[in-house]
Amino acid sequence: MLKLWALLLAALVMTPPAAAQSAGAPDPALVDDLVAANRILYDQGVVDGFGHVSTRHDRDAKRFLLARSMAPGLVTKDDILEFDLDGNAVDPRGRTLYLERFIHSEIYKAHPEVMAIVHSHSPSVIPFGVTAVALKPLYHMSAFLGSGAPVFEIREAGGDATDMLIRTPALGAALARSLGRAAVMLMRGHGNVVVADSLKLVVFRAIYTEINARLETEAVVLGQGKITFLNDEEAAAATATNNQVIGRAWELWKQKVAGGGK
Amino acid sequence: MLKLWALLLAALVMTPPAAAQSAGAPDPALVDDLVAANRILYDQGVVDGFGHVSTRHDRDAKRFLLARSMAPGLVTKDDILEFDLDGNAVDPRGRTLYLERFIHSEIYKAHPEVMAIVHSHSPSVIPFGVTAVALKPLYHMSAFLGSGAPVFEIREAGGDATDMLIRTPALGAALARSLGRAAVMLMRGHGNVVVADSLKLVVFRAIYTEINARLETEAVVLGQGKITFLNDEEAAAATATNNQVIGRAWELWKQKVAGGGK
Amino acid sequence: MLKLWALLLAALVMTPPAAAQSAGAPDPALVDDLVAANRILYDQGVVDGFGHVSTRHDRDAKRFLLARSMAPGLVTKDDILEFDLDGNAVDPRGRTLYLERFIHSEIYKAHPEVMAIVHSHSPSVIPFGVTAVALKPLYHMSAFLGSGAPVFEIREAGGDATDMLIRTPALGAALARSLGRAAVMLMRGHGNVVVADSLKLVVFRAIYTEINARLETEAVVLGQGKITFLNDEEAAAATATNNQVIGRAWELWKQKVAGGGK
Amino acid sequence: MLKLWALLLAALVMTPPAAAQSAGAPDPALVDDLVAANRILYDQGVVDGFGHVSTRHDRDAKRFLLARSMAPGLVTKDDILEFDLDGNAVDPRGRTLYLERFIHSEIYKAHPEVMAIVHSHSPSVIPFGVTAVALKPLYHMSAFLGSGAPVFEIREAGGDATDMLIRTPALGAALARSLGRAAVMLMRGHGNVVVADSLKLVVFRAIYTEINARLETEAVVLGQGKITFLNDEEAAAATATNNQVIGRAWELWKQKVAGGGK
Repeated sequence: MLKLWALLLAALVMTPPAAAQSAGAPDPALVDDLVAANRILYDQGVVDGFGHVSTRHDRDAKRFLLARSMAPGLVTKDDILEFDLDGNAVDPRGRTLYLERFIHSEIYKAHPEVMAIVHSHSPSVIPFGVTAVALKPLYHMSAFLGSGAPVFEIREAGGDATDMLIRTPALGAALARSLGRAAVMLMRGHGNVVVADSLKLVVFRAIYTEINARLETEAVVLGQGKITFLNDEEAAAATATNNQVIGRAWELWKQKVAGGGK
Repeated sequence: MLKLWALLLAALVMTPPAAAQSAGAPDPALVDDLVAANRILYDQGVVDGFGHVSTRHDRDAKRFLLARSMAPGLVTKDDILEFDLDGNAVDPRGRTLYLERFIHSEIYKAHPEVMAIVHSHSPSVIPFGVTAVALKPLYHMSAFLGSGAPVFEIREAGGDATDMLIRTPALGAALARSLGRAAVMLMRGHGNVVVADSLKLVVFRAIYTEINARLETEAVVLGQGKITFLNDEEAAAATATNNQVIGRAWELWKQKVAGGGK
Repeated sequence: MLKLWALLLAALVMTPPAAAQSAGAPDPALVDDLVAANRILYDQGVVDGFGHVSTRHDRDAKRFLLARSMAPGLVTKDDILEFDLDGNAVDPRGRTLYLERFIHSEIYKAHPEVMAIVHSHSPSVIPFGVTAVALKPLYHMSAFLGSGAPVFEIREAGGDATDMLIRTPALGAALARSLGRAAVMLMRGHGNVVVADSLKLVVFRAIYTEINARLETEAVVLGQGKITFLNDEEAAAATATNNQVIGRAWELWKQKVAGGGK
Repeated sequence: MLKLWALLLAALVMTPPAAAQSAGAPDPALVDDLVAANRILYDQGVVDGFGHVSTRHDRDAKRFLLARSMAPGLVTKDDILEFDLDGNAVDPRGRTLYLERFIHSEIYKAHPEVMAIVHSHSPSVIPFGVTAVALKPLYHMSAFLGSGAPVFEIREAGGDATDMLIRTPALGAALARSLGRAAVMLMRGHGNVVVADSLKLVVFRAIYTEINARLETEAVVLGQGKITFLNDEEAAAATATNNQVIGRAWELWKQKVAGGGK
């Protein structure tokens, strides 16, 4: 009996007073969707063993949900952790954290309208980050690229000898500034970041960013520099329409990974 | 008891007097094939979460069959609806309809010989819609391209600020006019439309349109502008032959999706 | 009773007196391998719903074995028919025959050393048939291309208005002449033919012809016209070595389709 | 009884007196990983029916473990053999050996820091071996290419008429010399070799060598000769970071093949 009291006391004492309080359990449907998002992005070839996807906590805009450090295709409910906007896990439970969680924390901090973020090494997009060709909307499915897809050069914020990773809040803040109002930002020699105002939409955008990159490479071969992209009005109008119909693709993608995925 | 009568009466009153009458239940084999067509087009990579395929009703040339708004890869018998040539669902049963059903209604209206239609964002075809390179028959399997593959520029009919979709009968009518006698028409910044005089043939053509586009892109790389396409006589003769043997591929494709597809 | 006799008599009378006699049942292991070859070629992407593979009969060099007209990926033992060197099925059992069986009959007639043949529309090879770039051995696996890969232009033998198919013995004979001593011949606007002195080897060659074509297209992009191919001695030596080790790949491919393939 | 004694005596007599002694049973976990490595490399498209992967024996640096001659995708525990640094199997058990086992023996002999080796015909890498374009690190995942990827020209060591294979200790020694401190060496007209200080790392590198080659080909199309690669400092820093996180990908790859793979 005495032992039990001692343990409870010790637990109280060990809790650091400045430790962040949890915003409470998130909506279980949101957690389900975040697990599905991880598996869909793997199944659709946007992420491989690396890359991550997060969503803001539904009960607190100053918190977000992200898996522990692991391959997205294997993520389960139990792997989801709560983070504050400095990139600290509220209760890490001894888990290893993604080195680049500051991509998420700093974008959420700087951009209140962003509700979900994907970071990936989406293959077809990589060549656009290391050449002078701009990623632009080839068709209505990727109309969100109409708001531009800037390239983040880490040498400007981090110097010439980084390991390319956004491993500090300062690098995350520089990335968030470069993002501006774009839905997609390329990271030279590394990958890209996609943002949206919902989890389903950010998954949709990440998938069609990859497809657009592949098709634009083919169009460059065919067009010899002459390609008709969506103009700004078309891109804006198609983006508004797409936002209404993404559920159609989400159902398909989700059902596909429910059966085990790849 | 009184309540039940009131409900029945209300139902009668609510039925609009001008509502179209159904042409009757279509041939169950045709519905089966339409479901298979949806799943085959997904399995073969012609459609993803978007795109649609229709067939004229076998009992009334002024009606056609098309799924409710959903991913083609998930379509079942119960999702098939009957439409009139103005794009109205005869009995929508509360289902959401494809925004672009006017692609189908207006082509069926303008082209009596067309019995089936595929609309897709078939990936390899997209670059041909935004560059000056014409999609032409590289080999006998895609000989139907010998009748030409015009590009529909929505800006001509809809102005510079559309969302790219064929969301009105007027845009559908413009599209149908541009199609002419071609089997395939590209839609700039959007996708393509394929037509044929049977459901199996339109599926065959949609699949080989995608393959031809991929191979033509490779031929452009190799040929540096010098490619030998089928000539008009070869294209016409090969088209006639292909139309006799498409059952061979249909059986394979159908069996593949019967096992669950992708 | 009388009726039965009449039927039997009619059957006897209808049998053409010149009808070819069967060479007898082929080695069951050869038939098994031919079924496997059909399914492997589909699983490895060399054939789709179209294309065919044959082998000489093990008991009579004037006979060969080929499936009835159907998708290779669905072929079973029961679909294999025996043909003579004029392309006649010895006992068609009412089955539809491949229109292009004369590719096989005429090559076997003209080239006694050929024991097995694949005809396909192997995708990556198509662009080489319609441009001036020669298909050459990029690496040791496709060393058999060192004996050259001529292009057959059907217009020379069949005129400018064929349906591209080798649908007559005369066209088959022209094709066989053009083949010469090559292991692979491209058919402009159509596909290709691969030959070898065994069934396993012809499957191996058909698969690496497709792979070599894909890689050579990439090398053209990179090399800007400067590519180092195997020289003649290297190609000959590597061909001799490969012929000894093809069993390693055959076991893998066969095991893969045994589990159902694609 | 006499017969048994005679057999035992014969067995003793037949054992060559100079036969190498086994270093003893390797760590079972290492053998498990080597089997997994074989299957992962097949599942990820680095090897097909050909190619091989080895690791040094954990109990003796003068021994290494490698499968008998077979398709990597089918390797099981029982297929793993122990070799000495002259490429002799310590106890071949009547198994056929890879003709090119000298790639492994000579690299292990010349490079004490190398603990694991992959030899493959990894498809996208082949074109870089036959053209003048250098394989360089396009992004952080393939940062290990920053140490250079020399091309081995077998004509220099073996003359103009080899079968391209490293089938002798002398050719293996020439290859090992050319490797230098690089992690990857291309073999003209043949394939490539990848080395690392652990089995998991060599698998990681072989996979991202293939991906980098594919993406660099696309970057060449887009960049028209102007591509920003990782600089030396970035490559070194990213390599150090990657070496810490490869377990994340390994878990994914291993789990995928545990379910049967492709």
